[in-house]
Amino acid sequence: MSEQKNAVNSISRLEAANFLKKNDNFYILIHVNPDGDAVGSGFGLCNALRMMGKKANVLCSDPFPDRYDYIIKDYEPMKFSPQTVVTVDIADTKLFGKELSVYGKYVDLAVDHHISNTGFAKKTVLDGNAAAACEVLYEIFTEGNIPIDKKTAVCLYTGIATDTGCFRFENTTRRAHIIAAELMGMDIPFARINRQLFEIKSRSRILAEQRAVEQLETYLDDKCAIISVSCEMMEETGLTQEDLEGIASIPMQIKGVEVGVTIKEKEPGKFKISMRSAEKVNVSEICGKLGGGGHIRAAGCSLEGELSQVKLKVLSVIAPALGFDLWLS
Amino acid sequence: MSEQKNAVNSISRLEAANFLKKNDNFYILIHVNPDGDAVGSGFGLCNALRMMGKKANVLCSDPFPDRYDYIIKDYEPMKFSPQTVVTVDIADTKLFGKELSVYGKYVDLAVDHHISNTGFAKKTVLDGNAAAACEVLYEIFTEGNIPIDKKTAVCLYTGIATDTGCFRFENTTRRAHIIAAELMGMDIPFARINRQLFEIKSRSRILAEQRAVEQLETYLDDKCAIISVSCEMMEETGLTQEDLEGIASIPMQIKGVEVGVTIKEKEPGKFKISMRSAEKVNVSEICGKLGGGGHIRAAGCSLEGELSQVKLKVLSVIAPALGFDLWLS
Repeated sequence: MSEQKNAVNSISRLEAANFLKKNDNFYILIHVNPDGDAVGSGFGLCNALRMMGKKANVLCSDPFPDRYDYIIKDYEPMKFSPQTVVTVDIADTKLFGKELSVYGKYVDLAVDHHISNTGFAKKTVLDGNAAAACEVLYEIFTEGNIPIDKKTAVCLYTGIATDTGCFRFENTTRRAHIIAAELMGMDIPFARINRQLFEIKSRSRILAEQRAVEQLETYLDDKCAIISVSCEMMEETGLTQEDLEGIASIPMQIKGVEVGVTIKEKEPGKFKISMRSAEKVNVSEICGKLGGGGHIRAAGCSLEGELSQVKLKVLSVIAPALGFDLWLS
Repeated sequence: MSEQKNAVNSISRLEAANFLKKNDNFYILIHVNPDGDAVGSGFGLCNALRMMGKKANVLCSDPFPDRYDYIIKDYEPMKFSPQTVVTVDIADTKLFGKELSVYGKYVDLAVDHHISNTGFAKKTVLDGNAAAACEVLYEIFTEGNIPIDKKTAVCLYTGIATDTGCFRFENTTRRAHIIAAELMGMDIPFARINRQLFEIKSRSRILAEQRAVEQLETYLDDKCAIISVSCEMMEETGLTQEDLEGIASIPMQIKGVEVGVTIKEKEPGKFKISMRSAEKVNVSEICGKLGGGGHIRAAGCSLEGELSQVKLKVLSVIAPALGFDLWLS
């Protein structure tokens, strides 16, 4: 992986720190459907800037999810005219969402860890090997001697923990562990944060998981597991799309499963397919054949038709990847 | 917490390393119902000793669980007469189990992180602040310049990840993170290990969780969640006690729950109660009132009678701890 795709506007972490020090009146943009790394890097940067006596706000086209209440509860937007626009954890202006789309051409600095960053900002600090935008931000702060207080530490820990699945996933870096150890030195309530991020579920979420498990089918010598959720089922149970978020990880929990598929009916006859793989199959390639794409271990596509047809279509592309020549035999 | 409860036979990590270097023909004992820290520290030590040209075997009264196949698959017991007996991650000779009980009086060295260690061994290296026995072992190896190869690194990572819930729980130390970063430097397949430890479930386990969720009831302003599993239900579903292991964490997943209770009917009319708390209530105290005990956040007790009576009894002790004076009002 190359560290910096967009060489034109790349700056070093130290240069980014100096940029933050020199400027004021910051609008910090985070992406739609914000996750822990978006919220963590957004509010972490905002807090660090305010600690330096600067004016800064965090802006998002979507509301901040309840899950991050412990970060957001004390936040009050300040009144000022923006002079500096910074994005964190955003690879593409498409992710600004409706309300923030107006800022697309005015981003002064982007702090990111997505190798796919389109280079939309005037200056970019991009580390494609970092596990989280919060990891990049931590290094900007430390290299530039920008103080990190407990509140900022809570934010940065949240981003790193979220994006690494609490240090479980392949993207976890040694650096992520060392930064976690540093942040823990500030006496952050990391166990409570992890409980909030990884354990606590709403009752409807638990119901959704139960329904999902009931729908689970396995194919191809049990190497492929499929969960499908129809519009009808959603209506029957009163579940929302939000309840179903992240449900794509469930098929992967079953012993022996190499490819996990989640088929969600978005509107009658229109399906969104999420695909995950354990360690061998390239699901980005498989989804590519179905008109979609993504990463090697997590990808997706959209298909139309009847559910049974959709399943068959999906299986017909997965089968050869699992070494089945004459499948369903 | 004091580091060393049993001052009489306490030795330093460096002394332990020298002891390992000086001796040979090791029997390494691990506890019954072995978890990742038992298996990791047992096989980690065994591998390190064999790398030093010594003879060593790992002994356990129970079979090694399949989950740790990636550690155990290459292991072959050696033939030799034991001269040195070492225990890892064992606090009490009660945990030797039937087959190993014969060694109770002949333990030369105990490596442990349980503050409750009874001091059964001739020499003990005890660090009650360590997250895992594997953390103590890692420091014995590094302080004593005992080489850690990739195979040993896999073992040590397994123990630390297991006991910290992959760096999620309150017992996670900064040291645990730093050691993880060091071990990752040996190119261990940590993501695959974590998938094996924390994600993959058997189908019967998934069924068991589903049934458990179906049985879930909440009380006391939804601050207390109870799951109960009767003998009848076990028979109906064909679930085993093994399928139910670890199920005590499920009530704690629900938003707002402070005390989670799991009631398992072991034989008709005889119940084993597991209690967990989120961050306020001392469940060790509560279980103490019911004739049991344990830790502040995880404890247990046994009760007899009808299920409804047992629930009532449990709730009557939990209610005041949650601030309910006239409860069920």
